[in-house]
Amino acid sequence: MYDVNDIRKDFPILSRQVNGKPLVYLDNGASAQKPQVVIDAINTAYSQEYANVHRGLHFLSNLATDKYEAVRGIVQRFLNAKHEDEILFTSGTTEAFNLISYSWGMPNLKAGDEIILSIMEHHANIVPWHFLRERLGVVLKWVETDVNGDLDPQAVIDAITPNTKMIAITQMSNVMGTVVDVKTICAAARAKGIVTVVDGSQSSVHMPVDVQDIDCDFFAITGHKLYGPSGSGALYATRERMAQMRPFMGGGDMIREVSRDTITYNDPPHKFEAGTPGIVQTIGMGVAIDYMTKIGMDNIAAHEHMLRDYAQAKLSGLNWLNIQGNSANKGAIFSFTIEGAGHPHDISTVVDQRGIAVRAGHHCAQPLMEHLGVSATCRASFGLYNTTQEVDALVNALELCHELFA
Amino acid sequence: MYDVNDIRKDFPILSRQVNGKPLVYLDNGASAQKPQVVIDAINTAYSQEYANVHRGLHFLSNLATDKYEAVRGIVQRFLNAKHEDEILFTSGTTEAFNLISYSWGMPNLKAGDEIILSIMEHHANIVPWHFLRERLGVVLKWVETDVNGDLDPQAVIDAITPNTKMIAITQMSNVMGTVVDVKTICAAARAKGIVTVVDGSQSSVHMPVDVQDIDCDFFAITGHKLYGPSGSGALYATRERMAQMRPFMGGGDMIREVSRDTITYNDPPHKFEAGTPGIVQTIGMGVAIDYMTKIGMDNIAAHEHMLRDYAQAKLSGLNWLNIQGNSANKGAIFSFTIEGAGHPHDISTVVDQRGIAVRAGHHCAQPLMEHLGVSATCRASFGLYNTTQEVDALVNALELCHELFA
Repeated sequence: MYDVNDIRKDFPILSRQVNGKPLVYLDNGASAQKPQVVIDAINTAYSQEYANVHRGLHFLSNLATDKYEAVRGIVQRFLNAKHEDEILFTSGTTEAFNLISYSWGMPNLKAGDEIILSIMEHHANIVPWHFLRERLGVVLKWVETDVNGDLDPQAVIDAITPNTKMIAITQMSNVMGTVVDVKTICAAARAKGIVTVVDGSQSSVHMPVDVQDIDCDFFAITGHKLYGPSGSGALYATRERMAQMRPFMGGGDMIREVSRDTITYNDPPHKFEAGTPGIVQTIGMGVAIDYMTKIGMDNIAAHEHMLRDYAQAKLSGLNWLNIQGNSANKGAIFSFTIEGAGHPHDISTVVDQRGIAVRAGHHCAQPLMEHLGVSATCRASFGLYNTTQEVDALVNALELCHELFA
Repeated sequence: MYDVNDIRKDFPILSRQVNGKPLVYLDNGASAQKPQVVIDAINTAYSQEYANVHRGLHFLSNLATDKYEAVRGIVQRFLNAKHEDEILFTSGTTEAFNLISYSWGMPNLKAGDEIILSIMEHHANIVPWHFLRERLGVVLKWVETDVNGDLDPQAVIDAITPNTKMIAITQMSNVMGTVVDVKTICAAARAKGIVTVVDGSQSSVHMPVDVQDIDCDFFAITGHKLYGPSGSGALYATRERMAQMRPFMGGGDMIREVSRDTITYNDPPHKFEAGTPGIVQTIGMGVAIDYMTKIGMDNIAAHEHMLRDYAQAKLSGLNWLNIQGNSANKGAIFSFTIEGAGHPHDISTVVDQRGIAVRAGHHCAQPLMEHLGVSATCRASFGLYNTTQEVDALVNALELCHELFA
């Protein structure tokens, strides 16, 4: 039985007030709050078990290394990767996509090669490919979403040409909540030898993920959205693709031997992990993933689907509210504008006075904004600890906005 | 008055035991322990004040952004940078040197250009330049240390040719503790328009730093060695050099506008900071720097010089101990081997049984190891909380090693 009130007790920040009102945190798409077990793990790591990893032979270093490296297996199981050495630690999805761009893209792509993107990608899954356009002459090809915000996998497949070398697609839009059938896309790409990059920043938080079933080459997750620490993340990369990649960052741990004139590199995944890593953040991410797994990703998804349906019903009753994206299968993420109202920033400011945290802006998705014909939206994004009462609070605050601005 | 026993009470881990003995932590060169104020700041950030930065307009996001951005001024004052916008946040010095390599080196260097390095650089300040050798044909030129481990600044200046485009030098060796007169080197480089990169990973922990006085182009520090969180760091980069740099990582925050076919970038320093940053780690690094500043960098340096002199006197009395590097002006870092004894790893293991954490290996400085004619050393590196009693404990443990192995 999913008891959201019990779960809320795990998150200390949810007890606080904002502007004299109980915090209603609906900015989970930007970053999620942390359960006490994660905060405790960080505290223990620094208070009792801290040292640099991989490099020492003393007790604390071995202890920290064991805890840090154990997270590789936690992420492997979370994503159902076949091999533990297919998990690279990163500081988040932004670093992951840049790693792919620099390590796989730069040495393997050339002018005229094509990368297919959906119009609803996050800038983290756009800008690294723009770098390849600027620096190599790679061509970016965009596939649009339909009027409901859905992405037809066949439209992506139809965009494939003999020059297509990579497809980079989110599994869940951070703006509209749209879930993409990445499995169908990856199957078509696999048959043609095209590299597939899946942005799991949002999807991994809200639904079970199985990278073997998806059969992608790369799958990126970010710890701070997974109820874990800032500055943590992981990238799933198949052994086959890692063998085609040169190092990204250089420094300690990723080398085998360094001399004045030559250098040789460590084996993957360490080849792609340079210097002192985010030790405690990574340990914290492991605890966060364990926390989610204990609740159960299916249970989290069911709770959030309930929230989505409840919110959808309430919000669609507001006939002055324009919701962007109405996919039947979407996550509990709602982007909207108010007819006749001021800028989404004004909406955000008003609801903030009621203690409700929503985000306003382009959500790092300017191509989508342009496609939707808006410069910005207001976004309410739900997480495992949100409640129907919080949906009601949001609706009441939006009604106030409508009265104020309309 | 510097009361080391009072300071020790600030570090909870120093009260713990290892292998049934009080912890003697002498692995500060690899990473330092954290005071309670830093741990508390992390706890508060996650328990009461957490949200993503820069992107929200709600209360928690503004609060987190204010705390995060305030660290830029803390680092500016710590390094005495002229402008706050000359401080970039990184995940550590490894990312900093890679940022310089990719953002300044790749677009500004060509085959035949020369980079001067000292033989005692850490791999973090070597491998990114090897990348430029491998990918562009840049030539790496090495300047050796003398028999005492000193680096003659004139030897570096003498290595300059018309092809020299960059000099990358540590201010303090992580192996021998040697302090380098980087100011003299940077003055000569400045006169010839040569870019200077100073590795402050060790020096910033142990002595006052003034980047305007040094007059370097880049100066890198790492939070986890500064008694701050893992995964934090900062890079000082002059406005002039930043204007010559293209972006390193792409993603949110570093852009101005992204469309399907074009992209424009944010102003420095944000141009070089992509995606959700290490929010809480950076806040923690600021608290750690404030902690050090409150004690006083001069006071820390004086305490550690006392420890260095005490240790030097004790260790030099062990005529079977080979100390690598005996610069008169060195930091409290001692690397050594034992005549006739086993591998440094064996020494490390034995002293660990006494609760003493030292590091054994090549210390990410293989060119220096080759220069010194050793494959590895054992290293004891001191910090602001270490004591003369801990030096005595180390000496006693080394005497045991000598008895066991000799």
